[in-house]
Amino acid sequence: MTEIQEPLSKSAQKKLLKQKLKEEKKAKKKENLKSEIVIKPDVSKGKYGFSPLVTSQFNEKRSEKLLSLADDIEESTDRIRLIARVFNSRGSGKQCFIVARQQMYTIQCLAMASKIVSTDLVKFVAAINLESIVEFIGFIRKTPTPVKCTQANVELHIDEIWVLNSSNPVLPLQLSDAMRSGLNTDKNNSDLPVVNQDTRLDNRVIDLRTPTNQALFRLIAHICKLFREYLDENDFIEIHTPKLISAASEGGANVFKLKYFKNDNAFLAQSPQLYKQMAIAADFEKVYTIGPVFRAEDSNTHRHLTEYIGMDIEMTFQVHYHEVMHFIGRMFEYIFVSLESRCSKYLNIVKEQYNVQKFEFITPTLVLQFPAAIKMLQETGVEIGLLDDLSTTNEKLLGALVKKQRYSNSYDMFMRGEEILSGAQRIHDPEMLKMRAEHHQIDVTTLKQYIESFMYGVKPHAGCGIGMERVLMLYMGLDNIRKTSLFPRDPKRLTP
Amino acid sequence: MTEIQEPLSKSAQKKLLKQKLKEEKKAKKKENLKSEIVIKPDVSKGKYGFSPLVTSQFNEKRSEKLLSLADDIEESTDRIRLIARVFNSRGSGKQCFIVARQQMYTIQCLAMASKIVSTDLVKFVAAINLESIVEFIGFIRKTPTPVKCTQANVELHIDEIWVLNSSNPVLPLQLSDAMRSGLNTDKNNSDLPVVNQDTRLDNRVIDLRTPTNQALFRLIAHICKLFREYLDENDFIEIHTPKLISAASEGGANVFKLKYFKNDNAFLAQSPQLYKQMAIAADFEKVYTIGPVFRAEDSNTHRHLTEYIGMDIEMTFQVHYHEVMHFIGRMFEYIFVSLESRCSKYLNIVKEQYNVQKFEFITPTLVLQFPAAIKMLQETGVEIGLLDDLSTTNEKLLGALVKKQRYSNSYDMFMRGEEILSGAQRIHDPEMLKMRAEHHQIDVTTLKQYIESFMYGVKPHAGCGIGMERVLMLYMGLDNIRKTSLFPRDPKRLTP
Repeated sequence: MTEIQEPLSKSAQKKLLKQKLKEEKKAKKKENLKSEIVIKPDVSKGKYGFSPLVTSQFNEKRSEKLLSLADDIEESTDRIRLIARVFNSRGSGKQCFIVARQQMYTIQCLAMASKIVSTDLVKFVAAINLESIVEFIGFIRKTPTPVKCTQANVELHIDEIWVLNSSNPVLPLQLSDAMRSGLNTDKNNSDLPVVNQDTRLDNRVIDLRTPTNQALFRLIAHICKLFREYLDENDFIEIHTPKLISAASEGGANVFKLKYFKNDNAFLAQSPQLYKQMAIAADFEKVYTIGPVFRAEDSNTHRHLTEYIGMDIEMTFQVHYHEVMHFIGRMFEYIFVSLESRCSKYLNIVKEQYNVQKFEFITPTLVLQFPAAIKMLQETGVEIGLLDDLSTTNEKLLGALVKKQRYSNSYDMFMRGEEILSGAQRIHDPEMLKMRAEHHQIDVTTLKQYIESFMYGVKPHAGCGIGMERVLMLYMGLDNIRKTSLFPRDPKRLTP
Repeated sequence: MTEIQEPLSKSAQKKLLKQKLKEEKKAKKKENLKSEIVIKPDVSKGKYGFSPLVTSQFNEKRSEKLLSLADDIEESTDRIRLIARVFNSRGSGKQCFIVARQQMYTIQCLAMASKIVSTDLVKFVAAINLESIVEFIGFIRKTPTPVKCTQANVELHIDEIWVLNSSNPVLPLQLSDAMRSGLNTDKNNSDLPVVNQDTRLDNRVIDLRTPTNQALFRLIAHICKLFREYLDENDFIEIHTPKLISAASEGGANVFKLKYFKNDNAFLAQSPQLYKQMAIAADFEKVYTIGPVFRAEDSNTHRHLTEYIGMDIEMTFQVHYHEVMHFIGRMFEYIFVSLESRCSKYLNIVKEQYNVQKFEFITPTLVLQFPAAIKMLQETGVEIGLLDDLSTTNEKLLGALVKKQRYSNSYDMFMRGEEILSGAQRIHDPEMLKMRAEHHQIDVTTLKQYIESFMYGVKPHAGCGIGMERVLMLYMGLDNIRKTSLFPRDPKRLTP
């Protein structure tokens, strides 16, 4: 309430109030774009409230410089503005602190009643729902002592604030809970709330706002970028292979089937392998593709998805498929080295939340030949000393190696003991292909077009398929592949 | 035949022959890896034949330098080798010319009987099936006059030749026919054979070997690369959206449906739009994705595919969706300018076969506002003078503009009068979204998760979806989208 200094008669008071309301109405009409909920006149009138929905009807830009919390911010006499989410707020009548958040970055904002800031504005600020998108306007000031924000030494003193888009007052999960450290297994030993994985995934849009998730999906983007960078540099061509295919070409198990016009059935490709190879037969020499791979496998483990992103390579070679294997090793070296140098910021954010061991890799990539692996097993048994310094190469690796068919021209790659890549020299002789298909009891007619591709001259070639989500999961040492898929799909999850 | 200089008695001749055959057998046994079909002793013995299938059993490299036909090749005294396809060959007893092909590049090879080259080698060369993968070994010499190869001034004089992988003698289409110029419509006026589109697509692996196709799919790769380059430079994040979704979210028509474990149904995403928007609601600010898009639409036109590659963008904006529209315009400018500077070689190859007009674009991208377009129509009628200098902006554009709903915050982009992009500001208010869904008679429950994403604060945003194949088709002025899809899918084609 505006305090009235000198007592007036009731009728005079009434008259005055009426007149004020009239003026207010007039002013409100004039400014009907903003200040919809201004209840009474105050010094901050027209400087706070709910902005109307942005419908691109107007093209008016504010003059204040827009702040990015990713930058180094310093105290300044310029009035600036900040568009960010309300991460948390605590108010006490005359002042309200808000932590504003932009992706992985935060700053403390302060609304304090003063000559130019009304208590109504402060109250308004304190009542803004968490996660709302807000425009903060004011001045950057040094903090007396460092604060717990990524901008530790400055804060924003606000004298104007607009809610651009309000969040629901009730959130299905609290960001502060989802950001708590040590939650790799979604269990912790403190009394603080734990956000379990299903709650996270059910409300993925909110879960993805945590700094860790912001960092993880920037890392995924960088892994793909580095993969392409290395391959482009080595004269590879990016291709796009069809996902709708006419036959369950890998034997029929674990394949999604759908109706394809009239009486046809189609299947979802379980890998781009056949088409990558056909691209080789079509003279593209070295190809790669990044795209979805579909597996109708009822596996509910920490490392299976029904839809994941395959990073696939196929290339011709001169003499021996080891040329391809070593090339792939060098590619991973490039990716891992570059991730460390370019993305240390993101890596640190993830490590801060999930208490994981740094991924150690060997350059050049350690190649363990089958006989050597056998020998090691024989000589040392399962609890081995020779491999003690290879934290990423444990019994699982040897176990997996032992399971491999003897002397096949194939290779697997392991990170932290789990397979992230499988590859092989392909059979490029049509007759041999037919024999192998028959041996594996695959109906050769379903492979007709594929086998025919090898009838008109083809170079020896090899390749591999890499699970994108697995690379990041194992690189970061996370416990579940769902953490590295933006909107994961498994036998029990098809939403959101 | 080895000529015998002095006449011998018949028995002596017989004895000699017997002895020779014995020696031959012995020698053949010794060299059983190579020269499987050597019939009689000759000076080129052990220097031609069929190589065994490369099974990576040996790791022996030849010492001769390997030639790449993409390079500038000069006459040299070094013995070199070339691995390439036999594109065509013509022999006449004592000599045989072969045109060898590596992707888009060719060179003439000459096998001529001499002191070091036997007539048997020449005969062997002449009998090699077209499209076989062959290792040619010999010396680079200047040609007396320029030849019709990309290497016009040099040829390879061979004294050794190995078939690494033989093609079937009968090809379903002749490369030379598929490469003939002026075939944009697969019709020409000469008497020379025409390869129609279905034959091409039925035998896509061979069709893709033409220089034009080699160039087209390198251009596709560059378009994607440039798209990502521009967006990465502007702080976009690449994301991967799920293709398996729980509801036919765009109304249920034209969507592929499949069984998803137990009793669930799943659908193939008709666009990544909902998930791009959810990524915006999850604070990623600016995202893009390149991936397959599925449309179960029974459209058998020159510009529809049932599976195509979508290049999708979504971004927040400050004040007006025109910010996004202009950004997209600048992005296309970057792509087109860079294509011309980086890929002129490929562009020329395509232009040589398909006699098309160069794509002209205006910088900055011409924005035709709805009222302006109307005014132009009203003032000038359909046969317009004002637009005469805009060859890419014809009646179709105005027709399409007229059809657009009035005053929607949307934009389409056209190349050569055909739509390649549609985009809009999205509704980010959950209540308004529900109303619009109901207005379009879409079951709101199928959009539940999507609409809920907008309940917890979201910035105004806009985006677009671009058909990758259409961009290249229209940029090059091709007549059919199947020409720019590696393995196209339409209602009648699910193979190869």
